[in-house]
Amino acid sequence: MKIENKNIEDINIGIIGFGYIASGVFSLIQRQKDYLAKKIKKNLNIKRIAEKDLKKIEASSMKGLKDIKVSSNADDVLEDESIDIIVELIGGINPAYDYVYKALSSGKYVVTANKDLIANRGGELLAVAERNNVDILFEASVGGGIPIIGPLKSSLASNNISKIVGIVNGTTNYILTRMEKDNLSFDEALKKAQELGYAEKANPSSDIEGYDTACKLAILSSIAFNSRVTLNDVYREGIKDVSSDDIKNALDMGYRIKLLAIGIEENGEISVKVHPALIPISHILASIENTFNAVYVYGNYIDEMMSYGRGAGDRPTASSVVGDIIKIARNFDRKKKGIIYGCSCFEDKKFKSIDDTISKFYILIDVADKPGVLARIAEVFGRNLVSINSMIQKQTDKEKSARLIFITHEVVNKNLYKSISEISKLDVVDKVLSIIRVEDLS
Amino acid sequence: MKIENKNIEDINIGIIGFGYIASGVFSLIQRQKDYLAKKIKKNLNIKRIAEKDLKKIEASSMKGLKDIKVSSNADDVLEDESIDIIVELIGGINPAYDYVYKALSSGKYVVTANKDLIANRGGELLAVAERNNVDILFEASVGGGIPIIGPLKSSLASNNISKIVGIVNGTTNYILTRMEKDNLSFDEALKKAQELGYAEKANPSSDIEGYDTACKLAILSSIAFNSRVTLNDVYREGIKDVSSDDIKNALDMGYRIKLLAIGIEENGEISVKVHPALIPISHILASIENTFNAVYVYGNYIDEMMSYGRGAGDRPTASSVVGDIIKIARNFDRKKKGIIYGCSCFEDKKFKSIDDTISKFYILIDVADKPGVLARIAEVFGRNLVSINSMIQKQTDKEKSARLIFITHEVVNKNLYKSISEISKLDVVDKVLSIIRVEDLS
Repeated sequence: MKIENKNIEDINIGIIGFGYIASGVFSLIQRQKDYLAKKIKKNLNIKRIAEKDLKKIEASSMKGLKDIKVSSNADDVLEDESIDIIVELIGGINPAYDYVYKALSSGKYVVTANKDLIANRGGELLAVAERNNVDILFEASVGGGIPIIGPLKSSLASNNISKIVGIVNGTTNYILTRMEKDNLSFDEALKKAQELGYAEKANPSSDIEGYDTACKLAILSSIAFNSRVTLNDVYREGIKDVSSDDIKNALDMGYRIKLLAIGIEENGEISVKVHPALIPISHILASIENTFNAVYVYGNYIDEMMSYGRGAGDRPTASSVVGDIIKIARNFDRKKKGIIYGCSCFEDKKFKSIDDTISKFYILIDVADKPGVLARIAEVFGRNLVSINSMIQKQTDKEKSARLIFITHEVVNKNLYKSISEISKLDVVDKVLSIIRVEDLS
Repeated sequence: MKIENKNIEDINIGIIGFGYIASGVFSLIQRQKDYLAKKIKKNLNIKRIAEKDLKKIEASSMKGLKDIKVSSNADDVLEDESIDIIVELIGGINPAYDYVYKALSSGKYVVTANKDLIANRGGELLAVAERNNVDILFEASVGGGIPIIGPLKSSLASNNISKIVGIVNGTTNYILTRMEKDNLSFDEALKKAQELGYAEKANPSSDIEGYDTACKLAILSSIAFNSRVTLNDVYREGIKDVSSDDIKNALDMGYRIKLLAIGIEENGEISVKVHPALIPISHILASIENTFNAVYVYGNYIDEMMSYGRGAGDRPTASSVVGDIIKIARNFDRKKKGIIYGCSCFEDKKFKSIDDTISKFYILIDVADKPGVLARIAEVFGRNLVSINSMIQKQTDKEKSARLIFITHEVVNKNLYKSISEISKLDVVDKVLSIIRVEDLS
């Protein structure tokens, strides 16, 4: 890690946490050091690494790692006054929050890929950064290698963003893609994802239940709508109730099912929700397959734009982490420092309850196959102001049983919930199998 | 244009040229002034406008325009020492080059949407900017409202980019989309594009013949490959020889025809070419319809990413112009100034001649329908090392005539040209109707 070019300045970097992503960042900086020095006229110099489990580092054969000062105590990195940028890659809220707080408080820049930290406590950390005339950048926390936070904060910053729709979790997108293409059940597709390392074996719930997606939506929405959105503000449904039947029915009607992160700002109110949805096959978001991610943005000047790419993996994530380091390093001035983007949550908008949002719904109901059943269901929908756009009746395997597929017009969500609750109790209804929103993305 | 907030600094802007895009920029800044002041903590203050044809400004009823100092002489703007950023929107190389040179030389930042200027003389202007410790930004010169230059210069900067593929001209993409969807000839689709204002009526050749696309490719490739590429370096074919038959044949084989801008770097050699190409319908670039644009990037860390959106129009273009102004304004320091991205062409790579590039080809040939014809054509291909992947024979309307559709394997372009030249002269060959490259985008 010697200075190769005496004419250009060293930017000293300390890494906290040395897992999968950090190894990728270390390797990228080592391999691209000369390339970056020519490009940004700065030397990226990894000076110290802190990792609780020193065996991880001892076990690594990575080139150049032996020359770095390594410690099991994060303070050894945080208190090194020569370090300009702290790269936080331990994940989780604690103790990451304390480390980042300490780094910013002592005038160091921070780069992180930690979506939990930013989605839960990003506002506080951005405020600390601003008070200390530095910044915390987190491009890698959403969409892996896809540039989306930077563009929202700069190129697109003059737009009022009305809506943002993301496919931002590779695991669930992989599962839904394989369910459709290989005709698998949810459990079979999850197993395949686990075998390939796309889903955690011990506990895949963060992906499957939409927590990961909700964190990313909170981060994107805070930036898009200039008002703080945290994980707790996000309505959330996962994909484990999506069946092969739902996927087939959707296809038959020209739709594909995706787990969407949707943020909407309308009349000063924010609605943020994560749920599976039927989207038209003709929309470009329906083409996002397997582990790919995409974020679609609607703005009053750009109209529509989308950023697409690899949403996970050590190399794409490292690309975004180092991209943030480059943003800080390029015009770095140790004496003056300064805010790169800063916090743009200058408003405090209200949230719309999921009950009051408006959606179209796909509903699958098994009923007794006898006269008058449809009339009774239709009566409940009608009384609750749920208007039906289309209905298909199919035979089921069971005798004297029929399956009804409804697509509603736009309805207030609480009216739909109330009608489903009533319909479930009808003696002619066997089971309400599925309730999934339909998003036309227009 | 009074300062609304006394606590935040004014960034003084001078606009040169007041046509369609400049009106959009002016209108955006006026409408979003307070919003941007809150977001970037700077006041964007349009101080002067220069427009050769003052009637354009007199005829405008735009709000706030009366309060701005207007002149028909660009020097009145360029010589105003209080102006920090010059927005050049007259287009064309001259006199834009002189104006931008003068602005940069006197330590002003420049923002431009001028693709001709950057594609032809960008290198010189970036050097002037660097000597004067300022910068020239040009996000709007490629892909209208789509952020791509910024991401390439920052978030993606640590990658070695091996390939870049763009659909960056809305007019030609609209024509090709309508030819397919509405079953139109090229001339009919062009007429429709002209009626809708997507193509120039007097002289649509800049779009149709691929000049516009080639300028954009030169700009993107210079950044992607860290080596200067100018318009003259780009191989170029337009779309006017693409027929309805080609589009139908392509569809039958699972392809869609798009005008592509392709930049490739391999073993230190750059290949830059603009031509129509058959691309697999399953690839996401095949979903880019009508006037939408997209840029697909292959990098060694991100793997693949794509940026998609509106490639033209006053509002999307204004969004990118103001995005560049924001990049300069956010950390503006009148005393210190500084380079935002600077020039990254630190290498001087060789260009590969189109003759030596390797492609697959789609070839359509009308021949006499008699025994031995195919053998004679196959002999020419074989002798020139052109290997055939598939061949379909169809009947034509004419008696004793057949149509052959070939798809080749990867071949050296000069070998293909030589075989086509020989095949054209065969007495059994009526006409070689089409030669279009096939890009698998893998």
